[in-house]
Amino acid sequence: MRGALRGVSELSLVPRARYRRNLPLHVVGLALLFLVPGMLLATLVEWVSATSHGERPLLTAALITAGVGAVLFSWFRPPDDVRPSDVFPVVVWTWLSCSLLGGLPYVLDADVFGWAQWDSALFESISGFTASGSTVLTDIDSHGRGMLLWRQLTQWYGGMGMVVLAVSVLPLLGVGGQELMRAEAPGPDSDRLAPRISGTAKRLWLLYAGLTAAVAVALFAIPGVGLYDAVAHALTAAGTGGFSPHGDSIGHFTSLAAELVMAAGMIAGAMSFSLHYRALRGDWRAYRRASDQMLFLKILLAATATITLLLWLRQGASFGLSLRDAFFNVVTLATSGGFHNIRPGGLGDFAAWTPPAQVILGVLMLIGGGAGSTSGGMKVFRAQISAAHALRTVRLARRPRSVVPVKLGGAVIPEHVVGRVLGFGTLYIMTFGVGSLIVASLGAEPVTAVSGVISALSNMGPALGEAGPSSDFTVFARPARLVLAAFMVVGRLEITAVFLGAAVILRHLQGRR
Amino acid sequence: MRGALRGVSELSLVPRARYRRNLPLHVVGLALLFLVPGMLLATLVEWVSATSHGERPLLTAALITAGVGAVLFSWFRPPDDVRPSDVFPVVVWTWLSCSLLGGLPYVLDADVFGWAQWDSALFESISGFTASGSTVLTDIDSHGRGMLLWRQLTQWYGGMGMVVLAVSVLPLLGVGGQELMRAEAPGPDSDRLAPRISGTAKRLWLLYAGLTAAVAVALFAIPGVGLYDAVAHALTAAGTGGFSPHGDSIGHFTSLAAELVMAAGMIAGAMSFSLHYRALRGDWRAYRRASDQMLFLKILLAATATITLLLWLRQGASFGLSLRDAFFNVVTLATSGGFHNIRPGGLGDFAAWTPPAQVILGVLMLIGGGAGSTSGGMKVFRAQISAAHALRTVRLARRPRSVVPVKLGGAVIPEHVVGRVLGFGTLYIMTFGVGSLIVASLGAEPVTAVSGVISALSNMGPALGEAGPSSDFTVFARPARLVLAAFMVVGRLEITAVFLGAAVILRHLQGRR
Repeated sequence: MRGALRGVSELSLVPRARYRRNLPLHVVGLALLFLVPGMLLATLVEWVSATSHGERPLLTAALITAGVGAVLFSWFRPPDDVRPSDVFPVVVWTWLSCSLLGGLPYVLDADVFGWAQWDSALFESISGFTASGSTVLTDIDSHGRGMLLWRQLTQWYGGMGMVVLAVSVLPLLGVGGQELMRAEAPGPDSDRLAPRISGTAKRLWLLYAGLTAAVAVALFAIPGVGLYDAVAHALTAAGTGGFSPHGDSIGHFTSLAAELVMAAGMIAGAMSFSLHYRALRGDWRAYRRASDQMLFLKILLAATATITLLLWLRQGASFGLSLRDAFFNVVTLATSGGFHNIRPGGLGDFAAWTPPAQVILGVLMLIGGGAGSTSGGMKVFRAQISAAHALRTVRLARRPRSVVPVKLGGAVIPEHVVGRVLGFGTLYIMTFGVGSLIVASLGAEPVTAVSGVISALSNMGPALGEAGPSSDFTVFARPARLVLAAFMVVGRLEITAVFLGAAVILRHLQGRR
Repeated sequence: MRGALRGVSELSLVPRARYRRNLPLHVVGLALLFLVPGMLLATLVEWVSATSHGERPLLTAALITAGVGAVLFSWFRPPDDVRPSDVFPVVVWTWLSCSLLGGLPYVLDADVFGWAQWDSALFESISGFTASGSTVLTDIDSHGRGMLLWRQLTQWYGGMGMVVLAVSVLPLLGVGGQELMRAEAPGPDSDRLAPRISGTAKRLWLLYAGLTAAVAVALFAIPGVGLYDAVAHALTAAGTGGFSPHGDSIGHFTSLAAELVMAAGMIAGAMSFSLHYRALRGDWRAYRRASDQMLFLKILLAATATITLLLWLRQGASFGLSLRDAFFNVVTLATSGGFHNIRPGGLGDFAAWTPPAQVILGVLMLIGGGAGSTSGGMKVFRAQISAAHALRTVRLARRPRSVVPVKLGGAVIPEHVVGRVLGFGTLYIMTFGVGSLIVASLGAEPVTAVSGVISALSNMGPALGEAGPSSDFTVFARPARLVLAAFMVVGRLEITAVFLGAAVILRHLQGRR
């Protein structure tokens, strides 16, 4: 790896002879450099708003991140030949490094977490970059506006990373479901892997930024929502993040319009960004051809209708209120957004809903959104393929010698894709079992532990039991929080990627010794 | 179906010209006739013990069952050619009919449930015949000894039905995992299906009865355990049933020896009866060759060791007490027995155990026992195959073009078996989701609803939440109990069989109209 010195960059900070070929460290450096403008913006807001004294920690973090990023980016160059299996360690390292350095402002500011609570800072940062939205930050509104903006920005960056991962990286490797749309994502092709990823990434960046801007403008147009709140919430809507600079989340606005705008942002975020891109280029029918995306919308409609009826008829709320709170909470949980709209006189606290409504929400949380989106959960297409396979099993038991293909939207799904989807589901359940055991061992009650792990793996935000929507993750012991943070990363990177990345990293480490 | 009059039986009660060819009704008749001796025995015990006045309801039920059984058995004859797909409706009808008529004593006796609580009677009967062990009978010890013996007998019959189903019916149809041992169970062969099933069934009947007798003798040898209690508990041990004529279950005896005997009976019941049969014929090594049975024993050992340490170190109980209660409860839940040993000074109430121990018990409940056994859950071999497939998925993601077979105990599992196992798992989860939704809609709290459905599908007995081991299923609303009873049947018949049976029945009904 050290000898291959074929590419030269004029921008390098180190002499030519000392270049190293290392794709993960190169990309980590690039990603860290991307974080710097966000940190500087947060510094500026903190300084101008004078809501606390976090500008120094934010600026220090920006400088450190810039330094580390610049050194890594220029010291290490990508190898000329990038194989698909090289990409996994890159993804894992990038997410971990961003989480680590992105948590710097929290530890550098003793009013937020400080060094004594480095693990809480790491949790908050990971919850941000994985766009989960679980929080251990108490009395949220008391913190500086810049610091809270940085917290929002971590989710914005995380959502963008997820879009790039889901639309341009995973499909090339045959993971993530987007590969089902063959026209968009041809199979692995090692020669042009890197340029194709970076080309797609740029287009996606613009799309994601545009969506964020649209949500910000729409929120700002609502009376009572200021510029800061509009921008802060827009940053976490399309990434289906869930962070809010207010402890009462979207309930803070007590505004139907704000809830609708946020819901629209989350729905857009939970659908395929490559379809959004096609639609922007005029091909609006692309949505209709993607059966999982259509089914996702139908699920939202059906769940909203059912829960509206349940709230209206069983809990005696007015029809309008039932519809409003059913819709917002269905969207926020099905998209794995994780915002809540608990407010005086509303029905936002779904932990108090009638049991069947809660079970429906639980199912929505597990299913998640469309392929190629920023949503969490197992994704609709996996549920579709698993269900189709299950029904096929019944048929095959009666006619063992017949051949029954699994179909999705009329197209036959290749058997190796079916196998991979079922393998993903099993890995998910195994990971979930091991996680529950660990978190319970660290002192959480069974329901809290189990739902906490599900929430983390689905990048949801709130859990059940003591960690419900009106509470936060401080109910978990400190070691348990770190475990949950690790499971957020596992869930975000689609499990397979993480297991694989870990295996590759391990092999690399062993190979070098 | 009406025209084919090729077989003649001398024992028939109806003239030759009126024979009907109908396999399900013929087998239902046979099964009902099997129940009659049990009902008569219960009548005798009730009459002799004079503990209540249930002898008349029991005798009436026996006469009705005998009449219905005799008419069906002789009126309807099996067709000469039995195809594998014919067997599913037989199994479903048999279980339902036995549950229906087996519940007669409960409704005929107003002191038990009476007609007003026909649904509770049905629940209790289904919980018996599926060997689940959940109960809605309150103040159990107050009822007559004969009536309670009948309740035990329903589980004995249910366990035997399960053995016949698991060892001789399901493998012939390629469902249930026993087919992995090819030497024992060759593939479907329509010509000789019926004789082979009935031949195996007779051998199994003897084996099962022998095991029951052995447990009864061992229990009776324990000071303080009377003949009635020894027989009553022996009837529900090897069938991994869970019913006891005492409200405090095995805790009633406060005897380590009784717990060990019951545990031995349950472990034997949760392992393959065809392997027991081979072992009895001298081939003791057959156990060692069956990797799922060995893994099951290892799981029991590992779980007992871990929970012993947890109880000893975390809850401050003595080592001996920790080991005793860890072992009994691991066995009773892993085998889906569902007895409990809650007693003064003991640690039997696992709902009060430290959270990680509870999570381990939950995992054991889901996994269940060996193939070809009376245990519930998804069965160890399915967990093995699913896990092997999941790990293969990770490998394949890195090397998409390689071929990685799934192995079990060194043998390659055919891909269609892997697919079937994964399909079973998915069906299980789907059924579980739908069930939770229904039970929650009928008024149960989410945790109670979800754990109740898991318990029913696994034929476990106790659930969590308000329906924990120290409580019973009366916490569920009456409609919810019927739903749970239906799910017990679904779980008992290995889900696929039920879906398939339902499909076939539906087709038959439609075809006849």
